[in-house]
Amino acid sequence: MGIATTISPFAPTSLPEAPAIAGVRFATAEAGIRYKGRTDLLLVLLEPGTTAAGVLTRSKTRSAPVEWCAEQLKHGKARALVVNAGNANAFTGKRGHEAVAITAEAAAKAAGCTPQEVFAASTGVIGEPMDAGKFAHLLDKLAADAVADAWPQAARAIMTTDTFPKLATRRARIGDAEVTINGFCKGAGMIQPDMATMLCFVFTDAAIEAPALHALVADAADATFNCVTIDGDTSTSDTLLTFATGTAKDCPRISDAADPKAAAFKAALHDLLQELAILVAKDGEGITKFVTVKVEGAESTAAARRIGLSIANSPLVKTAIAGEDPNWGRVVMAVGKAGEAADRDKLSIWFGEHLVASEGERAPGYDEDTVARYMKGAEIVLRVDVGVGKASATIWTCDLTHAYIDINAAYRS
Amino acid sequence: MGIATTISPFAPTSLPEAPAIAGVRFATAEAGIRYKGRTDLLLVLLEPGTTAAGVLTRSKTRSAPVEWCAEQLKHGKARALVVNAGNANAFTGKRGHEAVAITAEAAAKAAGCTPQEVFAASTGVIGEPMDAGKFAHLLDKLAADAVADAWPQAARAIMTTDTFPKLATRRARIGDAEVTINGFCKGAGMIQPDMATMLCFVFTDAAIEAPALHALVADAADATFNCVTIDGDTSTSDTLLTFATGTAKDCPRISDAADPKAAAFKAALHDLLQELAILVAKDGEGITKFVTVKVEGAESTAAARRIGLSIANSPLVKTAIAGEDPNWGRVVMAVGKAGEAADRDKLSIWFGEHLVASEGERAPGYDEDTVARYMKGAEIVLRVDVGVGKASATIWTCDLTHAYIDINAAYRS
Repeated sequence: MGIATTISPFAPTSLPEAPAIAGVRFATAEAGIRYKGRTDLLLVLLEPGTTAAGVLTRSKTRSAPVEWCAEQLKHGKARALVVNAGNANAFTGKRGHEAVAITAEAAAKAAGCTPQEVFAASTGVIGEPMDAGKFAHLLDKLAADAVADAWPQAARAIMTTDTFPKLATRRARIGDAEVTINGFCKGAGMIQPDMATMLCFVFTDAAIEAPALHALVADAADATFNCVTIDGDTSTSDTLLTFATGTAKDCPRISDAADPKAAAFKAALHDLLQELAILVAKDGEGITKFVTVKVEGAESTAAARRIGLSIANSPLVKTAIAGEDPNWGRVVMAVGKAGEAADRDKLSIWFGEHLVASEGERAPGYDEDTVARYMKGAEIVLRVDVGVGKASATIWTCDLTHAYIDINAAYRS
Repeated sequence: MGIATTISPFAPTSLPEAPAIAGVRFATAEAGIRYKGRTDLLLVLLEPGTTAAGVLTRSKTRSAPVEWCAEQLKHGKARALVVNAGNANAFTGKRGHEAVAITAEAAAKAAGCTPQEVFAASTGVIGEPMDAGKFAHLLDKLAADAVADAWPQAARAIMTTDTFPKLATRRARIGDAEVTINGFCKGAGMIQPDMATMLCFVFTDAAIEAPALHALVADAADATFNCVTIDGDTSTSDTLLTFATGTAKDCPRISDAADPKAAAFKAALHDLLQELAILVAKDGEGITKFVTVKVEGAESTAAARRIGLSIANSPLVKTAIAGEDPNWGRVVMAVGKAGEAADRDKLSIWFGEHLVASEGERAPGYDEDTVARYMKGAEIVLRVDVGVGKASATIWTCDLTHAYIDINAAYRS
């Protein structure tokens, strides 16, 4: 992907103040993997005893680091995380796997752990051979320099075409303990995550065993990152990892995701991932409008999501929104092509609060001027009731503009 | 959809000379349904005894005329076809069905047949109420004026955002008879037909019973129109109708699609539909490159098509082609997200004749400059071997450019 030249109009004006989490330390470096004059390498050191869980892309052409993480998630123990931006180490054959192994070995040496306790993620160009030699030698110094208060720096080091860093923080109670959850992520194009997001890393001082942590994060990812689309394209590198250090004072150990003591944590984790997922949509390549698609009255949640994605991915819906055209006929088209049960003659569509279609035709009170005015806003909500059931889903996306073409039709070099 | 301002660079310089077919006559008119200063209404009169067969969109929100045609295809007899451009009569509720009934009745009166022998198709804006009063009164005069030699006029009258009319002709032998097949179609955006195309009408003087004609056309559509995509969006109006007058001299009557006497006809029909389907891709909204995606080594034809469509619909692949960037990493991504069996470590990719990737990584002899030069051509062939089986498929598409955004982000009015 090329380089965005302007910052998303939806960029937050400031980053949240994420508190330090005992047992989590960061260091970043300018390794010059592809970008110049910015950090592109992140090392995270984790307290002994940290558990790890996550969800990874289901792409059939997933990257070498994704396969490495899949292997290490089986034991669920983590001491270090290494992330680089600029090269995805995807479709790089045997040498790609070797590059991950070299990285893990160097990080293990620096962190004082085994390579199997190192997680790795890479983002950037697909198919370029990855030279781990460009940064493996930097890890010793990074480990020596690591500090707890570097959340913004960490969030920045993993960016590719992102125009702003994405960081969120929450608090929750588990028993009598107050725990913190901080997370950051990257992603702006090639975004329709499949069981995960581009890259997202979440850290907590809660004490949660890996299988329970996996259940919590998989569940939350399903309704958050799996409901975001920018262009319907799915990365080879989608990785969502969660690390729990267990360093919070007096925190009871959670071994079952259904434990009532974990309820508040579960809600806070969902909330945090939703905030991060929305930030990804708000940094969609070329975005001028942030779009929320709400589907109701569907047969099942899965059907509602598929209909929502069909609307959110339709180039004709996305260009109409870019053109501030309340072209709800294209929404009808996108519902129709989704292939899920929908009763055309009971279908209702709202643009914001404005009912534009009902019972299989244009709504009686439809006033195009009113709805056209609504379309001039920066945040657009499309709501559709497909009239066959009670399930619903929400999808977040953005419009399709000239800037998307500029960013992605630019030659890589 | 808005209006394209420039003609596709792939527009043929002239239309083929389609011979008259005995028993088929045309007339067109400027009904002013939406466009000014051009024809937008077509009436076709068909010899008594003409059989009809076709395939229609599987959209859950299909239009009133599509439902009318589905009903009439059950008996497979046709005496007239009415097509209008400018209004799709889709999502128009009861009044939409009434508009078709009024149209069929007026055409039946003009043609001297029953309304059930009239087929109807509409293309244009979705959700606008359709006023059949705008053209029903014109049908009498059109019937009186109908002539056999008006193929180009007929092809032009059904255009919407098309920048050129699409007409093709073939000859074939059935027994000792020489028969003609002529067809025309329209389509430039909202194109990923689902069991049919946007609008396509095929006429032949062969004598073929409706069930056999259906089997022949459904089969041919599957490998032609169902393998074209411009933007992955599926119309509410997709309609492919075929009419056989049986007027060819000494033509044996075909009652079974597998009849060896029909083999040459079958091949010619496939060939004609492929030519028309490719013309649709070559008129893709905003096209600068015509793209052929060939998938080989797949588990099944259906899997090969899904992988091909995943590549052909990827905004990142399409913008890279627009930018003349041989970004084959995005092809890897699109194969991966298709969800069909593919062996990443046996995957091979060719851009034209140039092997760019093999055995899970960049091809050893890959020379970026050579491939970048290839990308400057107007016609691009992407070939992918996914390494798991023997099935293959070909998909035709175009790139995604600024002009697509211009055409589709323009306000409808």
